[in-house]
Amino acid sequence: MTSSLCKSVLITGCNRGIGLQLVKQLAESSNRPATIIASARNPSGSTALQELSRTFPDVHVVTLDVVDGQSISSALKDVRSILGNNGLNCLINNAAVGFSTNINSVTPEDMMRTFQVNSVAPLFVTKAFLPLLQTAAAQSAGMGIHRAAVINISSILGSIGLNCGEAAKFKSYAYRTSKAALNMVTRCLAADLGSDGILCMSLHPGWVKTDMGGIHAELTVEESVSGMMSVLSSLTQSNHGGFKDYRGQNLQW
Amino acid sequence: MTSSLCKSVLITGCNRGIGLQLVKQLAESSNRPATIIASARNPSGSTALQELSRTFPDVHVVTLDVVDGQSISSALKDVRSILGNNGLNCLINNAAVGFSTNINSVTPEDMMRTFQVNSVAPLFVTKAFLPLLQTAAAQSAGMGIHRAAVINISSILGSIGLNCGEAAKFKSYAYRTSKAALNMVTRCLAADLGSDGILCMSLHPGWVKTDMGGIHAELTVEESVSGMMSVLSSLTQSNHGGFKDYRGQNLQW
Repeated sequence: MTSSLCKSVLITGCNRGIGLQLVKQLAESSNRPATIIASARNPSGSTALQELSRTFPDVHVVTLDVVDGQSISSALKDVRSILGNNGLNCLINNAAVGFSTNINSVTPEDMMRTFQVNSVAPLFVTKAFLPLLQTAAAQSAGMGIHRAAVINISSILGSIGLNCGEAAKFKSYAYRTSKAALNMVTRCLAADLGSDGILCMSLHPGWVKTDMGGIHAELTVEESVSGMMSVLSSLTQSNHGGFKDYRGQNLQW
Repeated sequence: MTSSLCKSVLITGCNRGIGLQLVKQLAESSNRPATIIASARNPSGSTALQELSRTFPDVHVVTLDVVDGQSISSALKDVRSILGNNGLNCLINNAAVGFSTNINSVTPEDMMRTFQVNSVAPLFVTKAFLPLLQTAAAQSAGMGIHRAAVINISSILGSIGLNCGEAAKFKSYAYRTSKAALNMVTRCLAADLGSDGILCMSLHPGWVKTDMGGIHAELTVEESVSGMMSVLSSLTQSNHGGFKDYRGQNLQW
């Protein structure tokens, strides 16, 4: 029997797309975490998440609207009661919104909303669950998701350095700025949480055929999540504060 | 007689600090732009700006609240009437707010407000003044402030790559994320406006003794602005989409 990836994982934005698939592949894996917590803003509104929870009745489903402080507090209470005194090993900040906004179509409201969901919410979800991550970190050594980790699902579109030439042809002021800002949140968290033994990193899932990525995307959601799970399972100290893609390649900021 | 830096410049946030000093040193310089437009949210509230405008009566003072769409429209009308058909050579997006917000003190409201002023506003000010920049660009060749340029006053604190080790000891989730996001705005604008001949870059003024930088900062505002003016005057095509400090050193994203 292989050792488990980690004891517990909490994922945001599991109503569909990458979040949903992460839950599915984690639940199916031979070295699955004992406790998998799938959160979504409105779990009862997602047929797919409901089906998944019937297939895997031991997956916990929690309501969590990442931009709502009260919802975060309420989810924290739920998650505490699920985990008991074991703490949380791995928080995956996956919930996000995407807008394709070029220089003509972008509005201040697009920019603010995208920043709120994609950059601010991951910080405040992490702050809320930090005591649980610290509890888990105190029970183990080394660095990785076996101990404690914050994984921010970012995007290559948030790479400032790579936004030039051919790659700059995908226009989205709102999404790109929000993911660059999220990468800075990752680095700020890495600076603050490293001494607690909590690994923090940004992870680019690839361009994935989801509602957000569209039908012309390069990867199936299965391929993306398989790659990400392989990256997650191999994280060590050297990846703290890093930015990787689903194949484990380092990306520039 | 040396040739002028450019014919016209518009600077935001001139009520104090770096913006005010930029106006002063531009007005005093031997190769000064013929038209210097100092804008501020509330010019009449700044004694220093009023004094400067008495010393240099040919400096135009315009009311511009960078987060207020109506104020931007009204300022655009004022600036058009000052410039006539000449267009605008150089827009310096300098207005910004700063909060020292560590992981315990930061609030969602700090994050949102700082992003709005420091990242979103420069984009929408640039969009509004774009026709004037395009007019100027059409009248000249090459790249630089002699033709048309958008200079975003950023910060080394917005460098994601440099936010580690000793440099990570300055904690400000709100300010750091807003400046990383501004750097992405710079790159998006560079991708979109390069073909119009409009140079776009981020410029770090150094750590300056201003209300924002505090008394322990390394540089006087005179030193910072002297350096920045030297950088501005030497910009060429190779600096398009770049990130430099006041000494002309390239910074990593």
